[in-house]
Amino acid sequence: MRTARVAYGGAIHTATPHDDGLRLADGRVVSEDAVVWLPPVAVGTLIVLGLNYADHVKELSKELTVTSKDEPLVFFKGPGAVIGHRGQTRRPRDATFMHYECELAVVIGKPARGVRAADAMAHVAGYTVANDYAIRDYLENWYRPNLRVKNRDTCTVLGPWLVDAADVPDPHALSLSTRVNGTVTQQGSTANMINDIPALIEYLSSFMTLLPGDVILTGTPDGVINVNEGDEVVCEVESIGALENTIVGDSVFGR
Amino acid sequence: MRTARVAYGGAIHTATPHDDGLRLADGRVVSEDAVVWLPPVAVGTLIVLGLNYADHVKELSKELTVTSKDEPLVFFKGPGAVIGHRGQTRRPRDATFMHYECELAVVIGKPARGVRAADAMAHVAGYTVANDYAIRDYLENWYRPNLRVKNRDTCTVLGPWLVDAADVPDPHALSLSTRVNGTVTQQGSTANMINDIPALIEYLSSFMTLLPGDVILTGTPDGVINVNEGDEVVCEVESIGALENTIVGDSVFGR
Repeated sequence: MRTARVAYGGAIHTATPHDDGLRLADGRVVSEDAVVWLPPVAVGTLIVLGLNYADHVKELSKELTVTSKDEPLVFFKGPGAVIGHRGQTRRPRDATFMHYECELAVVIGKPARGVRAADAMAHVAGYTVANDYAIRDYLENWYRPNLRVKNRDTCTVLGPWLVDAADVPDPHALSLSTRVNGTVTQQGSTANMINDIPALIEYLSSFMTLLPGDVILTGTPDGVINVNEGDEVVCEVESIGALENTIVGDSVFGR
Repeated sequence: MRTARVAYGGAIHTATPHDDGLRLADGRVVSEDAVVWLPPVAVGTLIVLGLNYADHVKELSKELTVTSKDEPLVFFKGPGAVIGHRGQTRRPRDATFMHYECELAVVIGKPARGVRAADAMAHVAGYTVANDYAIRDYLENWYRPNLRVKNRDTCTVLGPWLVDAADVPDPHALSLSTRVNGTVTQQGSTANMINDIPALIEYLSSFMTLLPGDVILTGTPDGVINVNEGDEVVCEVESIGALENTIVGDSVFGR
């Protein structure tokens, strides 16, 4: 099963796919264009992996030597960063490198504290797609993805669907791709994560309690390029969904 | 005015000081010991400064050269990290350096985006006290205070009071101190912040929207020492409050 979370007719609804668009939980069938798509879950803590694909590490800097033996590079994002499918992401006018990042997002379904990797997948509710933009101009230190790079308003797009874990037999064998204005610019596979999903849940739950609604963005493969105002960016993860959004300029925000 | 947020009689209440303990908003007067103290605001995004006092930078490492010209070192904490006055903070049994950190916490009262330092204080609702524990054993990089160091369950204590900004004429002239089992171990002044409150609000609001309920922990002066299971730690900020909590071991949490 796959569900979206949408705003329609004065309220927020859970919706499922329908031949004529979306079927709201109350039975109404509406056009996809008639709703505002929200992130498919009410996000608790948003946990983000940096440098979790070896090819992406290589693309960013040959000097980095991240291996599977290092501690995962993990940080948080605030709620203001997050928008849903078909939202607008703001590009600051002084940026030279605004990079999309197509990622598999893991949604926690059951509380997890002190969980071993072998038991970790039972704590996963499902998956969605993330596009986690970075403004690389502001990076000071590869091991410190600072807030100006990574926590800008509208810089993390999530959706369109939450796909039940039961419907994804192997989340580590999914192709990822990004298209900018219809041209494929990024391709990879979740098979190439440095720290896989069970390892991440074991690591995180060793010092903090993961709760239902917490979301883990598992990192991006290589193939990031700069995007500009007006670009349409689609991040797709096989079997999970195709997440669309548009880059807009500062002027849309009034300054 | 100063207010607390407490759980009592099956509900969460706003409370004010009273000669006989606390006065709940509904008029009841109850003993301080009869309630569970929660963080004095429902925290939105919890924003934390690292290395924001020069003396503390010096105490941690002589190799660090943080100055007022550097970008602030800022990161987020998740909701599971936060507890209220008189709560228990867990000390992992493998830790050698568990350091308290007494800090002035700034609570945002009005949305802020693109706010200049000169206008920033109008966006502050008030202040509380924070004790932001760090397990320094796990630090890999001073410029990357990782989640295992800083985002453990129960590691950030907030309270007891939210003190209205109007009642704090100069938040940059307050003494801070920590007592461990009654002995003063840390003393400083908010006068010595590297990035002061207006500078922090200008910086943060340049790339993200600050919202009411967001909390900024402004950093700690020197004088951090290791604390152990059973220790009673009191962090006090002049005119704001004295925040108490207790260190407990892993066994309290069942493992």
